[in-house]
Amino acid sequence: MYARMGAVTLLILSLGNQPAKPQTRNSFDGFKLVNRTGNIQKPADYRDLYQTLGTYFVLDPKGGNQMHLTYASPGAADYYRRNKKFADGTVLVKEVFGTDHAQMTTGDAHWAKDTKVWFVLIKDSKGRYPNSSLWGDDWGWALFKSDSPDKQVATDYKKDCLSCHIPAKADDWIYVKGYPVLSSK
Amino acid sequence: MYARMGAVTLLILSLGNQPAKPQTRNSFDGFKLVNRTGNIQKPADYRDLYQTLGTYFVLDPKGGNQMHLTYASPGAADYYRRNKKFADGTVLVKEVFGTDHAQMTTGDAHWAKDTKVWFVLIKDSKGRYPNSSLWGDDWGWALFKSDSPDKQVATDYKKDCLSCHIPAKADDWIYVKGYPVLSSK
Repeated sequence: MYARMGAVTLLILSLGNQPAKPQTRNSFDGFKLVNRTGNIQKPADYRDLYQTLGTYFVLDPKGGNQMHLTYASPGAADYYRRNKKFADGTVLVKEVFGTDHAQMTTGDAHWAKDTKVWFVLIKDSKGRYPNSSLWGDDWGWALFKSDSPDKQVATDYKKDCLSCHIPAKADDWIYVKGYPVLSSK
Repeated sequence: MYARMGAVTLLILSLGNQPAKPQTRNSFDGFKLVNRTGNIQKPADYRDLYQTLGTYFVLDPKGGNQMHLTYASPGAADYYRRNKKFADGTVLVKEVFGTDHAQMTTGDAHWAKDTKVWFVLIKDSKGRYPNSSLWGDDWGWALFKSDSPDKQVATDYKKDCLSCHIPAKADDWIYVKGYPVLSSK
């Protein structure tokens, strides 16, 4: 009995000393964020737990400049590099920030300030929610705004989401060309 | 004997089912990347294994626009939020990309293309390498260029690195204001 406990303790200790290998653990469990009717919840702690795919910086003199940071659930990039597609259950979070800027040694540097909105996508290659207007084109779609960050406010993905993704239709609606980690780790 | 193996197997299986919690494992082992004389090696697979702190987009009509993505070793942001400083042994990688851009629905969107250079920093609050010109001001400093990505080419951090960091001196030389995850997860 004591010998067995010793072996188990040793195992726990040895596992605890392994270097952190977060994104190689593939847990494509995005559907945990979805309720019965197909409404999507924003994942908690994505800034800490998800992997960043990349950034788009958008110069828009009319509406103000924006920085878009896209995060993916652990394992997403590794799977994509090997299979050239997103795994069923992958979660993507695009956080849209307003920006500030200043003249620095390297030029006019822009950085993210306050969050404006979040877009959340969940890869669904099986058409799980045929009756929901928030699911279609192989993804579940969601929108959250900073004045009520936990309230999903999209009502119809075709009106609220899809139009901005049309230029990326050939890449499964995702702007993969700005995400270097999808082609090389 | 078989009973013990069974217990161990069960333990392995149960650990394997835990959700991925990468950055909460604090392994500030940056000094594994340093040789006896203080020369720093670029960490492998940082795009997959590290956490992204944030992005600076630099408009520079003379030298070409740049996108700077900064990655931190696992646990760095969590430690910083709780202690208002970087843990000894924290590794930061700043990857500097050239960019491309196109007119999109939201404006003139810029994204990262090919990597130009990498800056690597290791937090050293104990002055471990007093005789190295690559260590000082509480950090180890390193530079890698894309034509030879594994060769550290900085020779004197005061000449090669520090001047661009002077505006961030009060924040331990790091441009923390562009890294939202350091204040909120």
